Amino acid sequence: MMIIMKSNATPQQVETAIHAVKAAGLNVHLSQGVEATIIGAIGETHNIPTEIFEGLDGVETVQRITQPYKLASRQFHPENSVFPIDGFQVGGNDIVVVAGPCSVESRSQIIETAQAVREAGANALRGGVFKPRTSPYSFQGLGEEGLEYLAEARELTGMPIVVEIMSQTQLEVMLKYVDVLQVGARNMQNFNLLRAIGETRKSVLLKRGLSATIEELLMSAEYILAGGNKQVILCERGIRTFETATRNTTDINAIPVLKNLTHLPVLLDPSHSTGHADYVAAIARAAVAAGADGLIVEVHPDPARAVSDGKQSLKPEKFAEMVRQVKAIAEVMGRRIAPIKKPVTVGW
Amino acid sequence: MMIIMKSNATPQQVETAIHAVKAAGLNVHLSQGVEATIIGAIGETHNIPTEIFEGLDGVETVQRITQPYKLASRQFHPENSVFPIDGFQVGGNDIVVVAGPCSVESRSQIIETAQAVREAGANALRGGVFKPRTSPYSFQGLGEEGLEYLAEARELTGMPIVVEIMSQTQLEVMLKYVDVLQVGARNMQNFNLLRAIGETRKSVLLKRGLSATIEELLMSAEYILAGGNKQVILCERGIRTFETATRNTTDINAIPVLKNLTHLPVLLDPSHSTGHADYVAAIARAAVAAGADGLIVEVHPDPARAVSDGKQSLKPEKFAEMVRQVKAIAEVMGRRIAPIKKPVTVGW
Amino acid sequence: MMIIMKSNATPQQVETAIHAVKAAGLNVHLSQGVEATIIGAIGETHNIPTEIFEGLDGVETVQRITQPYKLASRQFHPENSVFPIDGFQVGGNDIVVVAGPCSVESRSQIIETAQAVREAGANALRGGVFKPRTSPYSFQGLGEEGLEYLAEARELTGMPIVVEIMSQTQLEVMLKYVDVLQVGARNMQNFNLLRAIGETRKSVLLKRGLSATIEELLMSAEYILAGGNKQVILCERGIRTFETATRNTTDINAIPVLKNLTHLPVLLDPSHSTGHADYVAAIARAAVAAGADGLIVEVHPDPARAVSDGKQSLKPEKFAEMVRQVKAIAEVMGRRIAPIKKPVTVGW
Amino acid sequence: MMIIMKSNATPQQVETAIHAVKAAGLNVHLSQGVEATIIGAIGETHNIPTEIFEGLDGVETVQRITQPYKLASRQFHPENSVFPIDGFQVGGNDIVVVAGPCSVESRSQIIETAQAVREAGANALRGGVFKPRTSPYSFQGLGEEGLEYLAEARELTGMPIVVEIMSQTQLEVMLKYVDVLQVGARNMQNFNLLRAIGETRKSVLLKRGLSATIEELLMSAEYILAGGNKQVILCERGIRTFETATRNTTDINAIPVLKNLTHLPVLLDPSHSTGHADYVAAIARAAVAAGADGLIVEVHPDPARAVSDGKQSLKPEKFAEMVRQVKAIAEVMGRRIAPIKKPVTVGW
Repeated sequence: MMIIMKSNATPQQVETAIHAVKAAGLNVHLSQGVEATIIGAIGETHNIPTEIFEGLDGVETVQRITQPYKLASRQFHPENSVFPIDGFQVGGNDIVVVAGPCSVESRSQIIETAQAVREAGANALRGGVFKPRTSPYSFQGLGEEGLEYLAEARELTGMPIVVEIMSQTQLEVMLKYVDVLQVGARNMQNFNLLRAIGETRKSVLLKRGLSATIEELLMSAEYILAGGNKQVILCERGIRTFETATRNTTDINAIPVLKNLTHLPVLLDPSHSTGHADYVAAIARAAVAAGADGLIVEVHPDPARAVSDGKQSLKPEKFAEMVRQVKAIAEVMGRRIAPIKKPVTVGW
Repeated sequence: MMIIMKSNATPQQVETAIHAVKAAGLNVHLSQGVEATIIGAIGETHNIPTEIFEGLDGVETVQRITQPYKLASRQFHPENSVFPIDGFQVGGNDIVVVAGPCSVESRSQIIETAQAVREAGANALRGGVFKPRTSPYSFQGLGEEGLEYLAEARELTGMPIVVEIMSQTQLEVMLKYVDVLQVGARNMQNFNLLRAIGETRKSVLLKRGLSATIEELLMSAEYILAGGNKQVILCERGIRTFETATRNTTDINAIPVLKNLTHLPVLLDPSHSTGHADYVAAIARAAVAAGADGLIVEVHPDPARAVSDGKQSLKPEKFAEMVRQVKAIAEVMGRRIAPIKKPVTVGW
Repeated sequence: MMIIMKSNATPQQVETAIHAVKAAGLNVHLSQGVEATIIGAIGETHNIPTEIFEGLDGVETVQRITQPYKLASRQFHPENSVFPIDGFQVGGNDIVVVAGPCSVESRSQIIETAQAVREAGANALRGGVFKPRTSPYSFQGLGEEGLEYLAEARELTGMPIVVEIMSQTQLEVMLKYVDVLQVGARNMQNFNLLRAIGETRKSVLLKRGLSATIEELLMSAEYILAGGNKQVILCERGIRTFETATRNTTDINAIPVLKNLTHLPVLLDPSHSTGHADYVAAIARAAVAAGADGLIVEVHPDPARAVSDGKQSLKPEKFAEMVRQVKAIAEVMGRRIAPIKKPVTVGW
Repeated sequence: MMIIMKSNATPQQVETAIHAVKAAGLNVHLSQGVEATIIGAIGETHNIPTEIFEGLDGVETVQRITQPYKLASRQFHPENSVFPIDGFQVGGNDIVVVAGPCSVESRSQIIETAQAVREAGANALRGGVFKPRTSPYSFQGLGEEGLEYLAEARELTGMPIVVEIMSQTQLEVMLKYVDVLQVGARNMQNFNLLRAIGETRKSVLLKRGLSATIEELLMSAEYILAGGNKQVILCERGIRTFETATRNTTDINAIPVLKNLTHLPVLLDPSHSTGHADYVAAIARAAVAAGADGLIVEVHPDPARAVSDGKQSLKPEKFAEMVRQVKAIAEVMGRRIAPIKKPVTVGW
């Protein structure tokens, strides 16, 4: 960490800052330039907030040299994190394709969708039962009833289920049913929720907040990892920018940047990152070409009748076409779509 | 609401869309241009999500004519909402000045600060006890112990206390102590929390999310209002943009825009919106000149030793100077800073 | 175009607005809802600015139904625009790869680079001679001397040259030397320059401004097309957002969106859109997977000694590796990299 | 400047970087931490681009300690720059109010407007004759004819005129007529134009680009100052963000930040920064309260008939009301609106 003093800082102020660095358990390396005095703070700094120095009199700015996270960092964990999700591996050579509707609307809807996406090549099923809706007047989800339908769909198709959790009060019921807890964009910095999930040993799909930096996403992962839960999957889902032609702006750069900075698996959600069914396949291909470890895609048997996100949901046949294209890109990248586990039930 | 059909939409698709509008309880007004067919959906639309039409085949886009909120709208409630906060009124002619440290750090720190800000002219006290921190390694707040210190500071100074709530699991203990529940930027779309607060009758200070639109802020207020809690105060605290010279970008436009769109009181937080103590007074003056109903400002007796936000915290004497300047601007605007309630305890 | 009146607009104001619509040569379709009166303006509207109605009393807002551009629109020109650049075609099935240094620094540097990129598979050469530099103290380019070196490199390698023009005062000298005029991001809305280029019949590579919307990019293309110059190539080069991990944010969504909205060829510049050599290949692959018609990439024989953009420039061997990867993705997409034209000079 | 080496940089790479620093005429201060080696580059660095070090192998990042501009910096010129604009001073204690239509439309329109704004208290007249328009189909301005009308209005009212220049080809005719050259947001980084203006001794109003950082604005000012033209006035006019409730987001923080960083006068344009006549007065008051040295405001005698920007133009009576409010705020700030110079012509 470098503490850059103002050009008119007094020797007394420099002294105080040096004292603060030492009090934080760091060594001091002083550098007196013509333009400014810089105090290098040397040692284990990832868990020391810059703000403890920023408020000191005479300090112009404080700059980190190293990352403010450690458990999520590839520097301290050079190998990819690979872990199993009920039958396949995430983070390794295989590409994961999670698919399903925005909301679970009914038993028949989710079972029909599950069978369709499985047939098309998906290896996990998504579906929301507690919905974060901008308007209090919108459909808020089926709750536990929806979880039961999802569990039934899992029985029938053999696909693990990925479901969004909105609050730590939902943790108990979610743990009972789901294979992967999804933390949505609006909750990426719900630190109480992150800490609660860190205490479990359930896999987590952590979505980037719509105005969160890549570093903040990794800091949120660090919250979960710090609790001892190592199974964190990151997900780029588009950021908010000035461009209005699409719902969000897919930050495709985030894929290689994250693969460089962290050992955690990285997925991309082209449904939310574009907001438009017509653009989903192109961005899904781009994600895998850029090095993503998987995709999470909204599919609905009848988007025109979806209670939410119909505009960005693929029909099953369009999804099947997307999977074929993604498969071809994956092969060029020396990867493959994770094979589908055999269903456990007979008669399907 | 207007449903704009694609230029190549079939008569069948137009028919289906018309059917969907009627099924939503709305009347249809059809307009066939050379370029496009437009279906006007006429009736009570504020609680109908556009997405139920957006997924229909042949639909290009759906545009709202009226606001998607009603309880928060000035159209349905032309008079300013004015309500009491333990001794003074918010939303009326008086300007409210909330001040205090980012975090409650100790009994002496909060009591010293409370006395200093009161003397300088503040009429309410802020202080965090549950802290949303980007890093799991940062100080996370004193919890209930901090609430007790705040309550003691209230006893001594007569100022009501404003404290951030991060989760509905904290609601019970917060209701026991605080006068105003603060919902922070990161929780502006924590809908479970908003709904829980809507069930109470406690005043709320709802801060705008750092990438939330003004409309989304009003939708979040609608969540609370829909539960029957009418005492919602809005707060602009800076948005995230490309500019890095300041911590956030103060959206000063939001002040007149919000005063136009809603009847709810609007405050501004110049500490977070600038991130730098040197700029707080200028933006505080600007806020009141633009029509804000109050300010919430970070003050610390010794910013250099603050455990959080030291860089943007004012020393008490700088805060007193800011209050003097704001008072002068308020007078030009035909307003005044809300008078301080007499303390209830003797001997101070 | 739809003119939405305020809910309290007077009949007189509606009348005036109707009159204005008719005066603009459009037909009126009136729709009186409970919430608002809407005046549909029907006819040829792409060349009518919304602002002529926005200032009218009683008007709430004006919304376009159709695009404000016509010549650039795929609606009026459904087939891809395909045109020749000295030996190969752009906009058709072939992928174009433009490569070269940020700045032409010397004769040997540009010739060495040209030979290296050609060998690696590039089919056109880029190189700046008039440099838009943020600082007046930075290297500003070699000017016409640089153009002569570029022309020599073209002679030797057979590759056409793409050079940025910064001002209409440079047009004459540029036309003498270059095959494709590049309009840089900072000049995307230099309308005098666009108009001057529209008068020529030289191919143009029009880069998106760093905070320009996709619609504004197409409006700038319209300026050139309106002058009769049909050979416009669009280029996404990253937009400015809050994310600082990369120099810009690659708007990969822009590729399928542009291919949908316009018939013009679309390239991507992964060097500027990431700002970092390590991420260029991943984003180049993503671009082609998303449907781009080509790439423009910065390559320098010795990035450590480049006078500009060294951080984002590929070494020739890294570029060659990138071309191999892009080629494989292109094949999956049913495309190929445009074959290299035979050089005209002997002895190389 | 600090060159931060990658944690795995080789001694050889550190050596090369040290060599590069010395070659740039700077002294080296080496700091070897546990986490990283940092090379302090000490000396006169404002005119050395960071990129000459960024491309070196083993370099992680390069950070400036001091500003990349010097002539614009308050550090090297602590006193405010104050200079005369035909009868009044800008940058001193007086507040300047520039007002007039977006476009000069006719002789009568500009003369009527000039007289109205002067009566209301404006001290300079604005009006565009070469218009940067997003669409090639929009009105592009009256050209020199417009300049003649403006000159006539100056004669009649005694107010100096401020006119936008779009290209260095217009410089000659502009110098003949105008008192202040305005460089618009889209041309803030038209470096050829800036350089050409730097060669003149005409006052300049330099508007911030809609996605330009404050530092980039100051770098553009540096271009003009470097040519010897010291009369540069800066203007905040709103930046592009995700918020769509207003045309742009007024970056009010830029006012105190600029007043801190530079000695140049700073104006604010509330017409463009809000895009809506209803919000102009509030933001004008805020600007002066935040410390701005003046305002530039769009006024039109009949906004409903304005050929451009009608929505954001004030009617003269609204403008007069705004001036009264701004005057009251100015007084609180210990300032006054610059007195109007007596007109030179009789009979008005």
